[in-house]
Amino acid sequence: MRMYDIIYKKRKGGDLTEEEIRFFIKGYVSGEIPDYQASALAMAICFNGMTEEETATLTDAMAKSGDTVDLSRFGTLTADKHSTGGVGDKTSLIVAPLAASLGAVVTKMSGRGLGHTGGTVDKLESIPGYRTSLSADEFIAQAERVGVVVVGQSGNMTPADKKLYALRDVTATVDCIPLIVSSIMSKKLAAGSHSIVLDVKVGSGAFMKTPEDAEILASEMVKIGKRCGRNVAALLTDMDTPLGRAVGNALEIKEAISVLRGETRGPLREICVALASNMASLALGIPIEEAVSRAEASLDGGKAFAKMKEWVAAQGGDVAYIEDPSLFPREPVVREVVSEKSGFVTAVDALKIGMASVLLGAGRASKEDAIDFGAGVVLCKTAGEYVAAGEPLCTLHTARENALAQAEADVREAFTLSDTPPEKKPLIYKTVR
Amino acid sequence: MRMYDIIYKKRKGGDLTEEEIRFFIKGYVSGEIPDYQASALAMAICFNGMTEEETATLTDAMAKSGDTVDLSRFGTLTADKHSTGGVGDKTSLIVAPLAASLGAVVTKMSGRGLGHTGGTVDKLESIPGYRTSLSADEFIAQAERVGVVVVGQSGNMTPADKKLYALRDVTATVDCIPLIVSSIMSKKLAAGSHSIVLDVKVGSGAFMKTPEDAEILASEMVKIGKRCGRNVAALLTDMDTPLGRAVGNALEIKEAISVLRGETRGPLREICVALASNMASLALGIPIEEAVSRAEASLDGGKAFAKMKEWVAAQGGDVAYIEDPSLFPREPVVREVVSEKSGFVTAVDALKIGMASVLLGAGRASKEDAIDFGAGVVLCKTAGEYVAAGEPLCTLHTARENALAQAEADVREAFTLSDTPPEKKPLIYKTVR
Repeated sequence: MRMYDIIYKKRKGGDLTEEEIRFFIKGYVSGEIPDYQASALAMAICFNGMTEEETATLTDAMAKSGDTVDLSRFGTLTADKHSTGGVGDKTSLIVAPLAASLGAVVTKMSGRGLGHTGGTVDKLESIPGYRTSLSADEFIAQAERVGVVVVGQSGNMTPADKKLYALRDVTATVDCIPLIVSSIMSKKLAAGSHSIVLDVKVGSGAFMKTPEDAEILASEMVKIGKRCGRNVAALLTDMDTPLGRAVGNALEIKEAISVLRGETRGPLREICVALASNMASLALGIPIEEAVSRAEASLDGGKAFAKMKEWVAAQGGDVAYIEDPSLFPREPVVREVVSEKSGFVTAVDALKIGMASVLLGAGRASKEDAIDFGAGVVLCKTAGEYVAAGEPLCTLHTARENALAQAEADVREAFTLSDTPPEKKPLIYKTVR
Repeated sequence: MRMYDIIYKKRKGGDLTEEEIRFFIKGYVSGEIPDYQASALAMAICFNGMTEEETATLTDAMAKSGDTVDLSRFGTLTADKHSTGGVGDKTSLIVAPLAASLGAVVTKMSGRGLGHTGGTVDKLESIPGYRTSLSADEFIAQAERVGVVVVGQSGNMTPADKKLYALRDVTATVDCIPLIVSSIMSKKLAAGSHSIVLDVKVGSGAFMKTPEDAEILASEMVKIGKRCGRNVAALLTDMDTPLGRAVGNALEIKEAISVLRGETRGPLREICVALASNMASLALGIPIEEAVSRAEASLDGGKAFAKMKEWVAAQGGDVAYIEDPSLFPREPVVREVVSEKSGFVTAVDALKIGMASVLLGAGRASKEDAIDFGAGVVLCKTAGEYVAAGEPLCTLHTARENALAQAEADVREAFTLSDTPPEKKPLIYKTVR
């Protein structure tokens, strides 16, 4: 078998066999197949696509290209979630204990943030003592005992995806459904959970700009996940504006606590309930309506919050901070950005808010940068709300006085005001199961 | 400017600007742009093509990526020819002195053979003393004095093409019109001649299988050459069967001598007259009909043969061999392959004959192999001719006794016999100017 023939076949519109796909992934990971052949194949796939069968085989081959997590001891109770990413997306912090409080076993391996989107692991590290790295035995023991465990990625998981993604990133082959699907789903398969709920973001701040495009991606991921033997559901959720009000590590933890305590209602809670109840519905085999009402009750009755404390404590975090979020250190500078005119907020550009929070110290510009856990942006007003001239739009939290001017300019640009209220858009466009 | 954006633009069907194309070629030759980006771009070009303007710019950028030959002192008198390659294609050996005998200045840089097609340089080296490597001054001086010079490729000509062709060869991006055109034409531009005549082979033994496909390629090459300021014509010629009767280095030289002496008529002479008269017509600005009759007269009147001797002598070759080809050493084994049945030869598979000649010692399987100049195959019968059972189909010439069995099996397979004569096909399908 020769890689040349595989590229040629795909270029001519042929369907690759299982043997051919596994030959490619094996050879690419081992280094026998060079990058220049892999990029030519990726480009041919961009043009000629892949069948469901090809995509499922590619996904499976990538999932098995490195270490995998064996959660078989939990039967079908395990549930994972994945978000296609967004600014201020702290849903994992809420959904993990919430779904666990309903009886699912939630084991997550999360990434660190780079650029304008923060990583769940960074956010958790703002809790003093929280260990984002556990041994394999500790990981399984905590899953058994607490039902929820969230760690950073470790070991050699999906090396095929790491290598191929880095290559696609520099060869203009990122936006290609079968390659996106296999990249996301291979990581979820390797992470071992039996049920997977996908949060596919739609909007100006997301990779998929329209609900139609997002639905195509979501449907493919659900189909491929099922072909690979997992339960899968996907929610298409709005990402025109940042989710919730806080952007920044400790700031987001505080907002998550508030939702888990049942204190904060609104879009963030709504999406978290939808995600967690889909996870519970798949994992426990209960109707979605029942899962939703159980989730609402868990938030309002304190069960979800109790599960969060149990989880953080199990992983070495100081629960005092969860019980009293005012313990989180306050930044030396908290600057109010005041609106110069009155009007309805029609849009808050998630990307610009994210960039401002990085300037303030909440993120990394490069892999080696340290994070200031307290830094970030808190929106006082978000899309759909009215702001009067002189009222604050948001607050900037930072230790970097010299970053304030640029950050303030960025966040001002992020807000669009209008004399008339914006059309109300759905928060969840659709659920694909 | 970023290579990523260039790949992305082409992937999305955009037209690359001159600046973008030159940035790519410059960066690729210098090594700043890696192979994996170049192969992704090549694949995107395979799918989305290039406009005439893009292809012309790419061709020009590749032509100027290394050394170029300055023939400006000869004004518009210089003429070159290029063949897309074929088995037994000794036209350059005939066309170069023939066109020179009509007044064109013919300077050729030819390649060595690899695989089943022989190289002009290898063929010329079978003449004792012939120097295939000249200094730049010697090259120009001979062109001025004799009007014809044929050497091997030297120096750093079209490094962009060398690098890109090697890459395309392993990434299934060879059969792509703009990439083929820019590869061929960049080398012709760099070689400096003002007029260029292309021999585009059509048929089972050629890259282009149908006259329609060949015409598309020919038209593109003519257009691009003209855009780059040269006179260009292209002939579509049949390549179902080997051209002429000899395949092998000294064997082909002998056949070329016979044509230049006016002794051999038929397809080989016909194609050589067409090529040389197109060269002369373009270079001298005379009507094609006049060029054809001058070429016929030159062959029949001995002018072309005299020019060949003058050329070979100027380049150090022993003219005694040209005047008396029986001086060329005879191989220890000359085996007749006799037909087992009677019938009309409807096809002679050029590829199989080529493979047999390599087995016999006429070619190289790898770059380092030495060539046995006397080895090869001479067809006694070719397409359209009748053979009676017991008559020879061809003779095998070799010093490798142990290769005979396989070579004989190969040539037997190459011949297709039928009870009825084959349909007569045109030798020259079309001329594109």
